[in-house]
Amino acid sequence: MFEKVKRMLIGRPMKSTEIEGEKLSKFKALAILSSDALSSVAYGTEQILIVLMAAGAAAMWYSIPISVAVLGLLAILIVSYRQTIFAYPGGGGAYIVAKENIGVSSSLIAGGSLLVDYILTVAVSSSAGTDAITSAFPELHDYRVLIALGMIVFLTILNLRGVTESASVLAIPIYLFVVSIFVLIICGVFKYLTGGAVASAHELSATVSNVSLFLLLKAFSSGCSALTGVEAVSNAIPNFRKPEEKNAAATLMMMGIILGIMFTGISLLAYWYGIQPNPKETVVSQIAAATFGRGTLYFFIQGVTAIILFLAANTAYSAFPLLSFMLAKDKYLPHMFMVRGDRLGFSNGILFLSSLSAILVIAFGGHTENLIPLYAVGVFIPFTLSQLGMMIRWIRVKPSGWQFKLLINTVGMLTTLSITLIFITTKFSHVWMIFVFLPIVVYGFFRIRKHYENTADQLRIDLSLDKPISKGNTVIIPISGITRVVLNTVSYAKTLSDNVVAVYIGFDDESIQKMEQKWEEWDPGIRLVVLKSRYRSILRPLLKLIQTVEWKKSEEDHITILIPQFITKHWWENLLHNQTSIMMRAYLIRNKNVIVTTVPFHLKR
Amino acid sequence: MFEKVKRMLIGRPMKSTEIEGEKLSKFKALAILSSDALSSVAYGTEQILIVLMAAGAAAMWYSIPISVAVLGLLAILIVSYRQTIFAYPGGGGAYIVAKENIGVSSSLIAGGSLLVDYILTVAVSSSAGTDAITSAFPELHDYRVLIALGMIVFLTILNLRGVTESASVLAIPIYLFVVSIFVLIICGVFKYLTGGAVASAHELSATVSNVSLFLLLKAFSSGCSALTGVEAVSNAIPNFRKPEEKNAAATLMMMGIILGIMFTGISLLAYWYGIQPNPKETVVSQIAAATFGRGTLYFFIQGVTAIILFLAANTAYSAFPLLSFMLAKDKYLPHMFMVRGDRLGFSNGILFLSSLSAILVIAFGGHTENLIPLYAVGVFIPFTLSQLGMMIRWIRVKPSGWQFKLLINTVGMLTTLSITLIFITTKFSHVWMIFVFLPIVVYGFFRIRKHYENTADQLRIDLSLDKPISKGNTVIIPISGITRVVLNTVSYAKTLSDNVVAVYIGFDDESIQKMEQKWEEWDPGIRLVVLKSRYRSILRPLLKLIQTVEWKKSEEDHITILIPQFITKHWWENLLHNQTSIMMRAYLIRNKNVIVTTVPFHLKR
Repeated sequence: MFEKVKRMLIGRPMKSTEIEGEKLSKFKALAILSSDALSSVAYGTEQILIVLMAAGAAAMWYSIPISVAVLGLLAILIVSYRQTIFAYPGGGGAYIVAKENIGVSSSLIAGGSLLVDYILTVAVSSSAGTDAITSAFPELHDYRVLIALGMIVFLTILNLRGVTESASVLAIPIYLFVVSIFVLIICGVFKYLTGGAVASAHELSATVSNVSLFLLLKAFSSGCSALTGVEAVSNAIPNFRKPEEKNAAATLMMMGIILGIMFTGISLLAYWYGIQPNPKETVVSQIAAATFGRGTLYFFIQGVTAIILFLAANTAYSAFPLLSFMLAKDKYLPHMFMVRGDRLGFSNGILFLSSLSAILVIAFGGHTENLIPLYAVGVFIPFTLSQLGMMIRWIRVKPSGWQFKLLINTVGMLTTLSITLIFITTKFSHVWMIFVFLPIVVYGFFRIRKHYENTADQLRIDLSLDKPISKGNTVIIPISGITRVVLNTVSYAKTLSDNVVAVYIGFDDESIQKMEQKWEEWDPGIRLVVLKSRYRSILRPLLKLIQTVEWKKSEEDHITILIPQFITKHWWENLLHNQTSIMMRAYLIRNKNVIVTTVPFHLKR
Repeated sequence: MFEKVKRMLIGRPMKSTEIEGEKLSKFKALAILSSDALSSVAYGTEQILIVLMAAGAAAMWYSIPISVAVLGLLAILIVSYRQTIFAYPGGGGAYIVAKENIGVSSSLIAGGSLLVDYILTVAVSSSAGTDAITSAFPELHDYRVLIALGMIVFLTILNLRGVTESASVLAIPIYLFVVSIFVLIICGVFKYLTGGAVASAHELSATVSNVSLFLLLKAFSSGCSALTGVEAVSNAIPNFRKPEEKNAAATLMMMGIILGIMFTGISLLAYWYGIQPNPKETVVSQIAAATFGRGTLYFFIQGVTAIILFLAANTAYSAFPLLSFMLAKDKYLPHMFMVRGDRLGFSNGILFLSSLSAILVIAFGGHTENLIPLYAVGVFIPFTLSQLGMMIRWIRVKPSGWQFKLLINTVGMLTTLSITLIFITTKFSHVWMIFVFLPIVVYGFFRIRKHYENTADQLRIDLSLDKPISKGNTVIIPISGITRVVLNTVSYAKTLSDNVVAVYIGFDDESIQKMEQKWEEWDPGIRLVVLKSRYRSILRPLLKLIQTVEWKKSEEDHITILIPQFITKHWWENLLHNQTSIMMRAYLIRNKNVIVTTVPFHLKR
């Protein structure tokens, strides 16, 4: 049953060798890795304008220099990350770069920060996508948590099916989005130049008295939230077709150029048309309405924007499993994140990401907006560490032309560091949590690593010295009556050892006496021990007996507990039988140095 | 940890012999078994008045003859049930009486109906109790589901602690309720007789044109909901101190008399004071206010009434576990309902009742009023069957004076049957569900019984013919490397059989070759088989191998799978290791005719 549903949802299992076919072409990679970055266009400019609004409409012109600054930052990031891709063709996320160049702690800070961030991405994006839907259909407002969860489930299934398949599905809306925003910008510019725009812009560079540096920095940092998602490409290099690094670098450049054009276009149009942020209508919507009027084209743009916002979550689905795989390989996360599923994706990572983000969506009732600044800080911390790592690398390795490369990464590091600090200063009330959970996560990484090391130490043997030793075997069979299951178990026990004893635990003298009589009559050739329990527990007297046997025999014998168990034909029939044997088995294995054997007897009907 | 919390909540485990101390005295039994019946006083009269209201204030006087009819019915029920108690001193619920006298199907209808009813009782009563609380503190209205669930949890803990302890706690509010209602009636009557009552009553027996028989019947059946809970005593006879039947009969009489006086008193006062039902204020509240004014006494009565409504749920907690025990003993319900917990109560029944009623409370968002008629029908069906059973018994057994006893039960049967039919006719829209779920429940009973019979047939052996047979043993050890766990397992395997083989499943040629080399170097004295998996599953190739071995060897050998497993020091560390062995074990035991042994190796840190 479960198996069938699974097949239907995620498809047939794939052979390990099919993995090459799951790799991404540039075209698909752009679609799958850029949705987070590109979707920022939908709110980047708006974030800047909202902050500037506080200083009045006259301050709006500052959006142009700020946008230029953001664009400059984008260029710096793209160029820096391009260097990282070529330096780390095996996957150069902040985690790897920090690990190899700075040290373990820094790499774990970067990794932990990113992992938490991906979870936030999914929660925030699915909530934002839901907002877009409920804005169009207000009657769905009561179901927002359900809708957001539905989106997460949809993405989970898509990603469990495998990378390429999800890329094929996702490519269409992303390219539609890019094309429609380009059409919007071209038509908008054309309309403005031909004098068709109605509103006129405030004059550039008019000094506005109440604009403080703090406000400008805040506006700038808000605009920087448009840059989250840029690191996705360098994390995902192993997912690319060969030659991986070239394809990845080309994809990154393409993404940077598209993002740059769209961001510039929207910011310029917003300025030219004199658009002011409005809680009831987005900036993009205002621009589209001013350019096309509220017709088909307008609604088309709104629709694709909504879809792209929701798909931004998908970037996290390709990045999280890969990063958790790397951490697991270094023993900082459980092994299970290294296991590839039926469709060759890291299914445990995918499911873990979905579960945690679903919990966030439920906990916040679908209102995750306040998590956005936290999420931006969580991106810029690893950005900074990654740049710092690259700087150290150039100084250490010194390849030809390393001075110029060092310069680029130094500029990159200083800018991302500044932005991190600006975020922390201007939005401390939203981001303080990162100082709580990041240390916890990093501590957890170290604990996990420690456990694995301890375990390996204890399990290691010396092939030439540690050889099997031979011992005897004492067998104990707890029984509650004489049935075919017991017959079966006794038959088996006699093949194991000559030292077998059956144990019956009775609650009153009558039942004990009856059992002894029956046993004598049956005479299976092994001894019966009867115990009386004053409580209604079978486990307690049995444990006492085992303890005694252990004490007497464990030197020369293995102690084996044989548990007779009948297996019902249908799983639900188990509800009809006491599960004493399961509890007994679990307890014994955990707490006693005994070997536990289940001797099954299969019921035919 | 879990153990500690459990001890704190429900107390130390008790010896089986302590059960006599858990039996009920008459005084405690009245408290524990009558809360359902006595609490009906709080709404019984009101239910009648509400229906009569539909025909106008002039029809109110009909409440007096209807109350007399209800009182008559109460007398009939008490007398009939008194006969049942003496006839079935071992516990004479409808289930037992119907089973012994009518037949299995009727008894299961009665039993199923009552079980469902007890669940409804808990859901309805805890919601009603919550209503009483939120009426006093409207700001708690948003938390009504939580409050109702809190009440259920409280009752669950109380009942898990044991019968007598919960009786001691509950006796106080119940006796306070009885005393305060008696005081109210005495003062009210005194005030009326001394001419202190303000409102004057309508004249008795004035003919009111628009009062139909249907309306009167509906008012009567509404009043009959005050009689639910009367059967609780006869179900619970085994819980009484010796002599059980005498104590039970006395308790029943006492309860009948108290209930009768209170019901008559309230109905009379309501009539004399000319009180009309009011959705904002209960009838009892109006009477209390008219008698005492809104002072301390008034609020005291309101408070105790709220508590008693909530405690009505507790009756179900003594009845449900006992009834489910009886059904389980007859193999119509899972064995687990027969197991006594640490405190000698049937803890599984208690927990099952709590869970299902909690689900109902959540599903209905705490508004369970519409379930009341359903619940009343669910009581009168077993009432009728029980009376019918007693009739058949008198005819069959014919003890001295049986004709008179037969007469009493015949009258009882006819009245309860009529009331059932009246309920179904006048409130079909509320009670049709019973025709859906009752057949399902009864079908379930039969299926469960069938399963137990099938199982017993298959497990039964002939002590003189079926003896243990001797066979060989083929042992298979799946390994994933050479570690101390494997060393341990191999040592053990060599004590079991000379026919041992280790199996390694590799995903590529390199790892397989490496493993073969290491094995040769180690040379533990058993053979290694290597398999290659093209998928990432260990289970599939292993299953194929087992199948082959089964096919070749199962005639002369048992096939044992030894699973090497290391046991972590802390349970949470298990999350860090793949649980392949657990899944493998579960799958093999269910699906293959092999014996599965876990050889544990305990990590020290």
